[in-house]
Amino acid sequence: MLVSSRMHRKGLFISFEGIDGSGKSTQARLLCDHLRDLGYSVTLTREPGDWSEGGKLRDVLLNGVLMHHKTELFLFLADRCEHLVQVVIPALSRGDIVICDRYTDSTVAYQCFGRGLELGFVERIFGWCDFPIPDMTVWLNLSRQESLSRMEGRGTSDRIELDFDLMSKISEGFSELARRYPDRIVPVDGSGDPEEVFGRVCDSLKGLIR
Amino acid sequence: MLVSSRMHRKGLFISFEGIDGSGKSTQARLLCDHLRDLGYSVTLTREPGDWSEGGKLRDVLLNGVLMHHKTELFLFLADRCEHLVQVVIPALSRGDIVICDRYTDSTVAYQCFGRGLELGFVERIFGWCDFPIPDMTVWLNLSRQESLSRMEGRGTSDRIELDFDLMSKISEGFSELARRYPDRIVPVDGSGDPEEVFGRVCDSLKGLIR
Repeated sequence: MLVSSRMHRKGLFISFEGIDGSGKSTQARLLCDHLRDLGYSVTLTREPGDWSEGGKLRDVLLNGVLMHHKTELFLFLADRCEHLVQVVIPALSRGDIVICDRYTDSTVAYQCFGRGLELGFVERIFGWCDFPIPDMTVWLNLSRQESLSRMEGRGTSDRIELDFDLMSKISEGFSELARRYPDRIVPVDGSGDPEEVFGRVCDSLKGLIR
Repeated sequence: MLVSSRMHRKGLFISFEGIDGSGKSTQARLLCDHLRDLGYSVTLTREPGDWSEGGKLRDVLLNGVLMHHKTELFLFLADRCEHLVQVVIPALSRGDIVICDRYTDSTVAYQCFGRGLELGFVERIFGWCDFPIPDMTVWLNLSRQESLSRMEGRGTSDRIELDFDLMSKISEGFSELARRYPDRIVPVDGSGDPEEVFGRVCDSLKGLIR
């Protein structure tokens, strides 16, 4: 049974948040498989890029040379608008559980806490866009050291992942968001092997899916 | 001699605006050639897309299937931020005359008057981004009928150009902007052959370049 906290929402909207290397994609995939095994219809998706033309934007965001401090914000907002209307909202209307790898909290953590954009104005834009609020957000909390060593192991990095100071500010951003929205954001210890973390993720979702 | 109306601006910033088919690109090119012949250093550029990664955004904007009514706005804003910082501002700092084919007025005319987005909020975003204001904007005023017959002759059209009702609203948007900012926006009759129109464009710029 799905218990959405939002009025008029048929499905359930879960976002995964955290710094790069915190295990979001792995945990989102594990949760998707688990819920499908239980018989739920699940849409697993991610920001940025998971819509018809999104690959082009994802490419610019992750690999392009961007020099203006607001360009990223507007690209993420464009990507989100289209991703919501093409993927997330139709899936919620069908009654799906939507699992989204990154969402609005990443914008706040990366653009406001990381890049220094004014939080108040960015939140005003969110309000203007009427972005749906997740029923629950799993924040995978992992130290920068651990996330960096995971990423080194992976051997991949993009333009945003490369800056250690930036990562520290972003990490503080997620902590602040979790303090600010305790009813929505559940902090989950992201350390240890994936099965161990997944046990904690499942515990954190007990009130929502039963 | 260049006479910029903006404090601390070394170069001169001229934008060309108007509906599709009104002759902006042709007139911008003619003006560029004319000013270069007079010995000026000129940067001829356009929105969207005229920067390192801009081709990808231009492709999404003009050919993509976009379903959310705010996606276009955010893509144009991202494109503008990067275009300004990579192209327009460096050229103005060098003392160039920058001729830009489309700029902020197109956003207002297309997104607010055309698509119905709230003008007040869009202008607040412009202010937040601190977009430089052109010294002069040439608005090529052409009836929708004439612009459509020109485009039919050209045999090309993109996603935005196709809708006649939308074009009417956009056209009204440019008229309204010209009424609102008479010191900056100079309406130029866009009918007739390119040389005829170019004579009018030169007349309109007499106070600025001498």
